[in-house]
Amino acid sequence: MTYRSSNRALEQKAERIFDPLFASAEISAVFSGKALMTRMLQFEWALAAALEKQGVIPQGVAAAIQAVTVDDLNIDEIAQRTADAGNLAIPFVAALTTCVAKERPELSGYVHYGATSQDVLDTSVVLQFRDALTHIEDELGAICAELVSLVTRYKSTLLPGRTWLQQGPPVTLGLKLAGWLDALQRHRERVQQALARCCVLQFGGAVGTLAALGDSGPNVTREVARGLELPEPAMPWQTHRDRLAEIAATLGMICGTLGKIGRDMSLLMQSEVAEAFEPVAEGRGGSSTMPHKRNPVASSVLLAAAVRAPGLVATMLASMVQEHERGIGGWQAEWETLPELFRLTGGALRAARQVIGGVTVDAEAMLEHLKMHGGVALSEAVSFALAAKIGKARAHRLLEQVTREVGERGISLRDALLSSAEIMEHLSTGEIDSALDPVRYLGSTDVYIAKVLAREGKG
Amino acid sequence: MTYRSSNRALEQKAERIFDPLFASAEISAVFSGKALMTRMLQFEWALAAALEKQGVIPQGVAAAIQAVTVDDLNIDEIAQRTADAGNLAIPFVAALTTCVAKERPELSGYVHYGATSQDVLDTSVVLQFRDALTHIEDELGAICAELVSLVTRYKSTLLPGRTWLQQGPPVTLGLKLAGWLDALQRHRERVQQALARCCVLQFGGAVGTLAALGDSGPNVTREVARGLELPEPAMPWQTHRDRLAEIAATLGMICGTLGKIGRDMSLLMQSEVAEAFEPVAEGRGGSSTMPHKRNPVASSVLLAAAVRAPGLVATMLASMVQEHERGIGGWQAEWETLPELFRLTGGALRAARQVIGGVTVDAEAMLEHLKMHGGVALSEAVSFALAAKIGKARAHRLLEQVTREVGERGISLRDALLSSAEIMEHLSTGEIDSALDPVRYLGSTDVYIAKVLAREGKG
Amino acid sequence: MTYRSSNRALEQKAERIFDPLFASAEISAVFSGKALMTRMLQFEWALAAALEKQGVIPQGVAAAIQAVTVDDLNIDEIAQRTADAGNLAIPFVAALTTCVAKERPELSGYVHYGATSQDVLDTSVVLQFRDALTHIEDELGAICAELVSLVTRYKSTLLPGRTWLQQGPPVTLGLKLAGWLDALQRHRERVQQALARCCVLQFGGAVGTLAALGDSGPNVTREVARGLELPEPAMPWQTHRDRLAEIAATLGMICGTLGKIGRDMSLLMQSEVAEAFEPVAEGRGGSSTMPHKRNPVASSVLLAAAVRAPGLVATMLASMVQEHERGIGGWQAEWETLPELFRLTGGALRAARQVIGGVTVDAEAMLEHLKMHGGVALSEAVSFALAAKIGKARAHRLLEQVTREVGERGISLRDALLSSAEIMEHLSTGEIDSALDPVRYLGSTDVYIAKVLAREGKG
Amino acid sequence: MTYRSSNRALEQKAERIFDPLFASAEISAVFSGKALMTRMLQFEWALAAALEKQGVIPQGVAAAIQAVTVDDLNIDEIAQRTADAGNLAIPFVAALTTCVAKERPELSGYVHYGATSQDVLDTSVVLQFRDALTHIEDELGAICAELVSLVTRYKSTLLPGRTWLQQGPPVTLGLKLAGWLDALQRHRERVQQALARCCVLQFGGAVGTLAALGDSGPNVTREVARGLELPEPAMPWQTHRDRLAEIAATLGMICGTLGKIGRDMSLLMQSEVAEAFEPVAEGRGGSSTMPHKRNPVASSVLLAAAVRAPGLVATMLASMVQEHERGIGGWQAEWETLPELFRLTGGALRAARQVIGGVTVDAEAMLEHLKMHGGVALSEAVSFALAAKIGKARAHRLLEQVTREVGERGISLRDALLSSAEIMEHLSTGEIDSALDPVRYLGSTDVYIAKVLAREGKG
Repeated sequence: MTYRSSNRALEQKAERIFDPLFASAEISAVFSGKALMTRMLQFEWALAAALEKQGVIPQGVAAAIQAVTVDDLNIDEIAQRTADAGNLAIPFVAALTTCVAKERPELSGYVHYGATSQDVLDTSVVLQFRDALTHIEDELGAICAELVSLVTRYKSTLLPGRTWLQQGPPVTLGLKLAGWLDALQRHRERVQQALARCCVLQFGGAVGTLAALGDSGPNVTREVARGLELPEPAMPWQTHRDRLAEIAATLGMICGTLGKIGRDMSLLMQSEVAEAFEPVAEGRGGSSTMPHKRNPVASSVLLAAAVRAPGLVATMLASMVQEHERGIGGWQAEWETLPELFRLTGGALRAARQVIGGVTVDAEAMLEHLKMHGGVALSEAVSFALAAKIGKARAHRLLEQVTREVGERGISLRDALLSSAEIMEHLSTGEIDSALDPVRYLGSTDVYIAKVLAREGKG
Repeated sequence: MTYRSSNRALEQKAERIFDPLFASAEISAVFSGKALMTRMLQFEWALAAALEKQGVIPQGVAAAIQAVTVDDLNIDEIAQRTADAGNLAIPFVAALTTCVAKERPELSGYVHYGATSQDVLDTSVVLQFRDALTHIEDELGAICAELVSLVTRYKSTLLPGRTWLQQGPPVTLGLKLAGWLDALQRHRERVQQALARCCVLQFGGAVGTLAALGDSGPNVTREVARGLELPEPAMPWQTHRDRLAEIAATLGMICGTLGKIGRDMSLLMQSEVAEAFEPVAEGRGGSSTMPHKRNPVASSVLLAAAVRAPGLVATMLASMVQEHERGIGGWQAEWETLPELFRLTGGALRAARQVIGGVTVDAEAMLEHLKMHGGVALSEAVSFALAAKIGKARAHRLLEQVTREVGERGISLRDALLSSAEIMEHLSTGEIDSALDPVRYLGSTDVYIAKVLAREGKG
Repeated sequence: MTYRSSNRALEQKAERIFDPLFASAEISAVFSGKALMTRMLQFEWALAAALEKQGVIPQGVAAAIQAVTVDDLNIDEIAQRTADAGNLAIPFVAALTTCVAKERPELSGYVHYGATSQDVLDTSVVLQFRDALTHIEDELGAICAELVSLVTRYKSTLLPGRTWLQQGPPVTLGLKLAGWLDALQRHRERVQQALARCCVLQFGGAVGTLAALGDSGPNVTREVARGLELPEPAMPWQTHRDRLAEIAATLGMICGTLGKIGRDMSLLMQSEVAEAFEPVAEGRGGSSTMPHKRNPVASSVLLAAAVRAPGLVATMLASMVQEHERGIGGWQAEWETLPELFRLTGGALRAARQVIGGVTVDAEAMLEHLKMHGGVALSEAVSFALAAKIGKARAHRLLEQVTREVGERGISLRDALLSSAEIMEHLSTGEIDSALDPVRYLGSTDVYIAKVLAREGKG
Repeated sequence: MTYRSSNRALEQKAERIFDPLFASAEISAVFSGKALMTRMLQFEWALAAALEKQGVIPQGVAAAIQAVTVDDLNIDEIAQRTADAGNLAIPFVAALTTCVAKERPELSGYVHYGATSQDVLDTSVVLQFRDALTHIEDELGAICAELVSLVTRYKSTLLPGRTWLQQGPPVTLGLKLAGWLDALQRHRERVQQALARCCVLQFGGAVGTLAALGDSGPNVTREVARGLELPEPAMPWQTHRDRLAEIAATLGMICGTLGKIGRDMSLLMQSEVAEAFEPVAEGRGGSSTMPHKRNPVASSVLLAAAVRAPGLVATMLASMVQEHERGIGGWQAEWETLPELFRLTGGALRAARQVIGGVTVDAEAMLEHLKMHGGVALSEAVSFALAAKIGKARAHRLLEQVTREVGERGISLRDALLSSAEIMEHLSTGEIDSALDPVRYLGSTDVYIAKVLAREGKG
């Protein structure tokens, strides 16, 4: 069992064993090798159909291509040849041509006519990105719908607001969740804009002029776009990759918000806080050695995605510097990076649905925490009640003093206030109790919740 | 002159000596310490005015704040105290309060009433970002206008298309520039969307409830927003930073495109290519030791920005994971990062204007290069002429053979074609000459140029 | 007070108002403009001295350069001219030459003789990096020394171990701190290796051949290296930047560990945990609106550095792709990036010293938390006591059941165990109490602490 | 063929179709699912053997584990359950326990005894990293050996030095390659240091105390380390990930240097430069539409790795911020990131071997390029010949003037010099010709080459 020899006997097939944890089945399906080949077949079919319609190539090519299915292609062999060809399209087109040649040898010369590798690859991944973005839009919609009902349910559930991880005045759980919802609503808008602006046809031939098609370029382009239900851009964009960078940035932002949700959840679920919990399920979140453990597995997925997404977005931005009419290095850097980012985003959205769909809440613990440390979290409320009488600055200083005393003497804020002659000079016991009532210190909470819900047609 | 002692005597004031190279004066001005303080004063003034209008605080506070100018504040001292306070707002508010107290001691207690540090800081930087984005939008507009005239001028100037840094069929310089313009047009759209979606008021008090303002929160918010001419969001967004991430991503994408332009320019300007040049100016791009050098200084600025932007965008995305109602670490990570990204973008845009506004072109050299290596760059054109007769696959193989011969025998593609019996069987000399004429092999070039210009109202 | 016009009147001088918070005075001093100019003067002096010694230039040049001080140079003007020159060295050499020419016009032609811009710039920043790394090494040493005494003091102070933010079996505070110390010891080693491998002379002339010096290159190089007390590399390294990348990566790793320390501290300092605290000081960590707040300011600096460092390291890695004999874009991208990373590391180390030097600990709270949730954190201890009798798998399942019961019935783990017939069949009350005693469940803790301290010559 | 439905029928198995292009077979083998499972089996076996030896568990467990092979495990099912468990170790241990229970039910309870998930996972990936780093060290060694022979062969082959992509004085191809070699030598040193410092055992139990093993912890640890031939660290390092970050940074730096090599190669291979070429092979680097194309495929792999590595290193640094005794999010973020970086590095090293092992050189073209633009690249040589007579500053200005004239009048530098009365006053024709001879203007080139080769025991 020495370590140097042990790999020899192993298969070298690269798997993705973490897919079930970090990705979602839907996204994995969109980006499987077969799915990509299917998209590439679809492009070549649409191209042939367009060329036939414009009379550039003989009739029958599109039909011959359509007769080829992904199962007729040897993906492993195509992948292997990519190492020499430098891109997937060359061995793919060769394999497709061979398939067509078997049935219609006289037509096989018209496969991929006038297009270049980048046309079929870029357009095919755009088709994948459209599918994946559409799925993400749906997921965001589903999460927003869940959140609408959670926000409504926990509209008035009090818990401490927390800043710098220190308790502050109260918020409601509904408000916290409304903040999540508010951000996700903006992400939906961004996804929609990315779908519209970024998922467009790439078709330009060798150097982006479609020279091989002579005058037919614009007409063929229009037909290919129609065949693939893709918008037609003003011009080919082989080395202008801002559209892909925008998709990446949009996913990166979504992962950022989901990471914030994961952070919040995992903090609320801490043993010492224990205010809200990920749903429990058999075999979920256990430990291999600690019997009592319930690990926040979904939160860890959200957080891991948020840690990983920024580097991947940076890569997509760095790869934008592509040379002249078709680049070297930058283009290749995109191929695995953007699908990876989609995997993480898809997996994080699935984890978010688990959390949000099944969160359990301990409202009592939340309320209890408002009373910690003598209830100093409401010091601001008293400070403002006092400020109305003696000005904010003096009130603030007075309360700083009183809260320090609370800490040192281990008494409650109420007791400390009542025992301060200076404060009692300006506030009555009733005013103090009123200030210390968290329900009365929620300010605009309800208004905010209503505004956010209104955008979902609720509230 | 030993190295360990030499710093003792030095001032410790941190400067930015590379600002003139990497930033633009306009952006530097927006993000200077004084400009930030001015924005913070403006926020406090707008807040006081709103509170007065709603009757929350006595009349006169806003006027007292307005009487304070940035020169009344000791920026160095405020900066120094930030080290203890943890944020700039606390010492700023203290300094402002002291100023107000000098003239109107009885009102000084109402400065910053109901707001928290993050309100004044976030809103002030949003005001800076709006200024900076507006400047960037203007710069993009100016560059687009320059490009419109360049595209028009070089519409038909032939040069080799280049893919993987290898020559391919011809393009025109106008088409290459139209590609730049096309991308920049999308960036303008993104900047406009970012301005609308991201530059909004932040105002939520301690934990985002405006509890200190009781029922007046919504009304005061509306007035503050009006005073600062900023849109009002559905709810405060202290720990939801997707808006700032979107701004960062937008800048990152702009830098990516500008980096592509810098790469193209520096490649065209290579000694061995020498087809286009950055403008020459006295003292510009010389070498400290090589008398003949004309370094592409502006391109280096474009490329450096493109190298640096991705990491900064990644930081903004990573900092999105902010805890509960106000975060720790993530918020602080933004303060220098987004202004830095604006500096780089501003500097790169200025460099791009220099390049695009003053580029000189050697059209003869471009044309000459189309004939390099026996003119094989036009092999595709012959291949397609031939494909119409004998099918694409056979034509492609034949041309692969002929171009290899061109390389090995050092003859021109034309001669090689004319001496190939197999080719001459299908193509006449006239057809060959026609195929080898670059002007006839530009496909949809003019259509694309017209489409891109049309979006600028030209074409 | 409208926003568009307000910048006009402002100075455009770029400051660094966050330096006192995010950087350390020592690091800022190393990287000030004056410090850089001083280093550049030092290089030119050492070069001239070496050239004189080898008889390449006339005597007197070095002395004339040495007579120039940084105050004789107009840094603002040099910075301004950098925008045209593309690098700082060209206007610097021009300014220095002017200074020398005033006193010794006949010698001014020998300033910077045989060197290129990159020689003086690269070597000068290497000198800065050496100073800064030496400072960082000292800081790491000081922190390690503090940690040694903290580890010793809190060697046996019990608190819950926490995994996935959930309580697990106990650790001691000493062990937690020993983990910090262990990591920082490795960083010291890395800093020493970086100092040795990376801080070397760069001197190669125009293209890295020192051609202008004819045969004297090696001798002059040896003398320059000696003059600057810098190791001499095998060959110039103008476009091989792995040394700078290694420095960056070393700093990035330090920031990562410091970020972990900041995360731990801020979690321990949470209102609901309150087991350890940053030192309190007047004016430190207050809130602009919440009188009771003590914000973990130093932790926020540690966390912010850890959020920002990865992007800056990535930039240094990305900038390694530099062209041929001297690059374009990559070189320029380094100039502000590595100093920025030093700033953050220096500031984070200062913050770490504050935290570690002044941490206050509530050992009682730590002990109290071990009893939370009925004391289930010690379930593993009971599980292993039981496993010795009935095997691990069955014991684990049994304890999963019992701990679930603890949660549901709200009783203590001890009571739940005592009331389980199945468990009492195998364990006596004494065995249970022994298993539940945290002091007895610390395993190898002391051994680990001793090993880590031993590396500091303690333990 | 509409796009929304087309995925339904596809398998959802995630493949890595770009592995043959971007990874190397050896690295893929190290990181396959089976290889990981094998390493995990190996850990559990070594653990059981150590526990038996120390008398903690009954004899026979290790033998029972050793009888289990990776083929007895259902990787797909383990992967699937990871989604719930949150880590691979829990379902792996469950599956292993089931296997052991089939043969020796009475011993199955002692599988994974005293360890936690992170112990088996971390140690197993460390074993993978050691294999992979060892492979990388071998690859670096092989490339260095190739470079030694290339440097020797092209020691005196002249070509233009190039700075900012502009021609400068000559270098030799040997010197350029010596620069690559010099950097790769440093990387070998770094890999060796990373192997020694970073590839160590992780074994700490639930919270890093090995409490479940009572007093046996240190002895068991020593035996496990011995069994796996892994160094034993001072203490467990579950949340101190600097070792993994160092591995990542080392790989990132290697990719940076390889990217520089790819950039140099692709620039040399440009149609307009055509001085050096990647090896040609059947089916390698062709275009799907341009018959004459020979794309620099290996360079594109090198460049793509250099674009992608920085973001992945940044992720590893960002993931260092791990909480308390075992983190959430950061740990998970490592699992796919570091293997991905190994893939890219392995693939890039393979591509580098292809390039370096088979590069073809056109020495004639190189020499020809030294004469471009009238031969101004040697202006520095003349400038220094002149400087010896009239001082550097005046000589530099004079040559600036003359080289400008060369450009404007289209004559050679030699002719321009001979026609300048001012220059001929100080230099003879012979001196001019001598200065213009590139062979005489190589300075220390041979010394540098000798030094670098000496480190390989050559030279």
